[in-house]
Amino acid sequence: MISSDKKMVQTFVSACVRAGMTTVVCSPGSRNSSLVIAFDEHPKIKTYVIHDERSAAFIGMGIAMEINKPVGVLCTSGSAMLNYYPAVAEAYYQRIPLVVISADRPEKWINQGDGQTIVQKGVYTNHIEGEIHFDENSDLETVEKSTLDLFSKITLQSKGPIHFNIALEEPLYQTTEISDELPQEIDWNKQYPTLNSEEITVIKKGLELPKKMILIGQMPKNPYFLEVLKIIADDTSFAILVENTSNLSSMKWVHCIDRTLQTINSEEELDFAPDLLITFGGAIVSKRIKAYLRKHQPKAHWKIGIDFPEMNTYEALTNSFQVSEAYFLDTLIRIKSDIIPNNYGSKWKQRDFIAQERAEQFLINTPFSDLKAIEVSLDCIPEGSHIHMGNSSIVRYCQLFNPIPSMTYFSNRGTSGIDGSVSTAVGAALAQPQLLHVLIVGDISFFYDSNALWNKYRLNNLRIVVINNGGGGIFNIIKGPRTSKQNADYFEAKHSFKTEHIAKAFGVDYFSAGSEEEMMANMADFYAYDENSGIKLLEIHTQAINNHLILDEFFEAIQST
Amino acid sequence: MISSDKKMVQTFVSACVRAGMTTVVCSPGSRNSSLVIAFDEHPKIKTYVIHDERSAAFIGMGIAMEINKPVGVLCTSGSAMLNYYPAVAEAYYQRIPLVVISADRPEKWINQGDGQTIVQKGVYTNHIEGEIHFDENSDLETVEKSTLDLFSKITLQSKGPIHFNIALEEPLYQTTEISDELPQEIDWNKQYPTLNSEEITVIKKGLELPKKMILIGQMPKNPYFLEVLKIIADDTSFAILVENTSNLSSMKWVHCIDRTLQTINSEEELDFAPDLLITFGGAIVSKRIKAYLRKHQPKAHWKIGIDFPEMNTYEALTNSFQVSEAYFLDTLIRIKSDIIPNNYGSKWKQRDFIAQERAEQFLINTPFSDLKAIEVSLDCIPEGSHIHMGNSSIVRYCQLFNPIPSMTYFSNRGTSGIDGSVSTAVGAALAQPQLLHVLIVGDISFFYDSNALWNKYRLNNLRIVVINNGGGGIFNIIKGPRTSKQNADYFEAKHSFKTEHIAKAFGVDYFSAGSEEEMMANMADFYAYDENSGIKLLEIHTQAINNHLILDEFFEAIQST
Repeated sequence: MISSDKKMVQTFVSACVRAGMTTVVCSPGSRNSSLVIAFDEHPKIKTYVIHDERSAAFIGMGIAMEINKPVGVLCTSGSAMLNYYPAVAEAYYQRIPLVVISADRPEKWINQGDGQTIVQKGVYTNHIEGEIHFDENSDLETVEKSTLDLFSKITLQSKGPIHFNIALEEPLYQTTEISDELPQEIDWNKQYPTLNSEEITVIKKGLELPKKMILIGQMPKNPYFLEVLKIIADDTSFAILVENTSNLSSMKWVHCIDRTLQTINSEEELDFAPDLLITFGGAIVSKRIKAYLRKHQPKAHWKIGIDFPEMNTYEALTNSFQVSEAYFLDTLIRIKSDIIPNNYGSKWKQRDFIAQERAEQFLINTPFSDLKAIEVSLDCIPEGSHIHMGNSSIVRYCQLFNPIPSMTYFSNRGTSGIDGSVSTAVGAALAQPQLLHVLIVGDISFFYDSNALWNKYRLNNLRIVVINNGGGGIFNIIKGPRTSKQNADYFEAKHSFKTEHIAKAFGVDYFSAGSEEEMMANMADFYAYDENSGIKLLEIHTQAINNHLILDEFFEAIQST
Repeated sequence: MISSDKKMVQTFVSACVRAGMTTVVCSPGSRNSSLVIAFDEHPKIKTYVIHDERSAAFIGMGIAMEINKPVGVLCTSGSAMLNYYPAVAEAYYQRIPLVVISADRPEKWINQGDGQTIVQKGVYTNHIEGEIHFDENSDLETVEKSTLDLFSKITLQSKGPIHFNIALEEPLYQTTEISDELPQEIDWNKQYPTLNSEEITVIKKGLELPKKMILIGQMPKNPYFLEVLKIIADDTSFAILVENTSNLSSMKWVHCIDRTLQTINSEEELDFAPDLLITFGGAIVSKRIKAYLRKHQPKAHWKIGIDFPEMNTYEALTNSFQVSEAYFLDTLIRIKSDIIPNNYGSKWKQRDFIAQERAEQFLINTPFSDLKAIEVSLDCIPEGSHIHMGNSSIVRYCQLFNPIPSMTYFSNRGTSGIDGSVSTAVGAALAQPQLLHVLIVGDISFFYDSNALWNKYRLNNLRIVVINNGGGGIFNIIKGPRTSKQNADYFEAKHSFKTEHIAKAFGVDYFSAGSEEEMMANMADFYAYDENSGIKLLEIHTQAINNHLILDEFFEAIQST
């Protein structure tokens, strides 16, 4: 096969393949061309071309989320890699194996007045699992070994982004024929740690606490964990709270945390607060549950999982068990036989039922609004889709509705930025062409990341629902700015830019709706797809209404009197 | 006046005003709202609202370039500040006083699972002049003093970006009435260092070298420096080479370096190479002159100016004189009386005339192409405009034509990235509404940064010329990929996306031309402006031709036989 004529590049690419990397998103440039050629020609690597590096890195992340393997993003020297940084930070907090490969100039030309040259080493220090620098004088054995070592970090240990900074000398475009023999992919044979007897004792003791809450943050779909959790749920002394980003849907527990919390009045708060809090997974969307647990701190908080063991979200962390989630639950079932039963979990579940009923009642007559548009959107998404929720208000609105079991939910809750939602969905759609991917996103997030659509791939399996409320709906949810008379400009991002033309610029089919009826009339066409349908975008206009008043009424309707 | 009720915020904002900051570009968010309120309400501060932080920071930089004062960019916590990074690096290398102000959560909540929280401290370490962190417990005197200290760095010493990271606690939106008394702006009274007698001796000695070249990189317009340089130019032993980004137009020296170098054949190379190289200003666009001087290294290279004194672009640096450019030239005139005259400078100027004549001759019959489109574009720009040149091929094409004296030339040659050219021009146009600003940019750069147009400001004084050659024209100039058969996708960014619809999405008037005649027919309308004209965009299509062949022929026509 053909490759770059640079031995260091050949060795590095081969090591990436051995480590299990199968996909590289390349952003065109000159300095990185040796690497582009070597990856593109390699039969084990699928490459994509994306120009805007900010978007490219989020696309790479979206692919990695779907294929659950390290995905490379490859850029030229200079400011290109700085545009990767928002996605690197997101991958860091969301624990996604994003592999940044930046071409660089030889060291002697750094800060010497050459174009496209910055100090690339150490740029990501705050948000990376590791970084290596190679140049053409690097010893080839070291290149191979240290590449595999860095991959091992995010394969055997906690996932996250890593960075290879590779200095290349001109000429950059020369190729050569190399052996067709493909390197053997490493069987990493990941070993999970287990609990020791001391830890088991702590757990046994802790389980004696009567009010036990399991709170689960963002997780990829995990059918085994779901089944074990259902067994735990049969013990009514456990309240189990999940979010739709937990990807754990069951009638046995509480899905809509904010909705359920709303039924608990101030006198009941203490009663519902747990003595023992067990947390799994990544970020929690609900600010209310965080505030609630910080106010009524549990006697013990166990954090389960290998990532961020020191993270003390509720200021009450007593133990961090760095084992796999399912293994911990298995152990819990094995040792929990002595628990004295109580109805703490049932009480939470009961409130969930009440809240759900009141919410459904309220929604029957709700005027068309952000809330209604989200309800209708979620109702209409074809079964089995992957739902990508934009940040800010969208992901919060979505948390007010029970998750649909057949769906898989995604949202960039690592840094919770409004940057990159569209690109992440594009990446997911590229990685799983046989599945329908539906992005629900606010107008500000959509415009922010509209370069996600600036690519040559015809994605028949991507649908984008833009909730256009004129911008900045989040500030109606968090309430602060409503009391501030001035500066409305800053806190609500009112604008009148045209999504329709952005769609047209990138060859995306455009649909529009300003009412429930118009939404329903469009749905069949919108979700129809064949091998030529391409991306479709449905813009839902809700500017005409005071969305925050509807939301206030929603919560009032749920509140216990 | 009204301000945030937070004393630390009041003190910080007041110190910024005292330091001479007059403008802040705000990106909406929640965590930064106390700062937004305080800046927005301050009568001495002009604020703008831009959503996409990547674009906002380049807009801030464009404003700072025009007003020659520190400009703030203010964002919320989390990944927002990472989107600033490309502009921070550009400001670092281009020496522009960009003041990054990032809101943060209180330290105890960093890496504890809260949304929009990353490790903000130290993110810009590689490319910043300094960074300070404040929180609401910071001593107010320290806040004031350290703020002024950090500003003093980029005011009294070398310019460049600085970073204030400010942790804020809820509630964030509360305001209070504070004294209307405005703080006294500091008179920084910048002192420039002078040359000592030892240095004067070195200079006197160096001037004895017969072949003296003055090479000037990127500089803001400097009429005094221009006048002094003209006096030096009368000494024919000096060859003076400038680029259009040097903003120094005169018949007395060589403007188009690549064009002139093309007339020097391999036998003549040594003859034209300088014994003494004196360099002023920032980045040099011409790769050829860099390669030429690295190949034929001067006996002495003096670098003049306070920025990057150690930068050894030609591997021949002998002295760095950290004094102002004009002061150095003044000194040179004062002490150079003993120079034995020679015609080294005249020889260079003669070649420049020859090259210019051949170029003009060639251009008469050149078919419509990138080269021709740039020629016509430059010819038609109204006198006195500010020209913003996109990176990659555009700035290189522009260097082939003599600069127009009444124009001011800008280009992001700090990192030479394709990111941010449109935003920088938008910032410049916002800052100088009474001047016409013309951006000439390639299609890839335009799409990359099209969010620059996503703002509510009606810029009647901005014209955008997009040279649409189907993408990636730079790779035809640098020649490498032309010899590479495969991977055309990667090196030329062919695409068929529609600039017209991007223009429509953001309310920009669209013009199109595919020939010189069509260009000329549009020009009057395109450049017409009144208080309602808004931004206009002219897309020039040159895909139909092999642009790189035209460029080859251009250089062949200039070459001496």
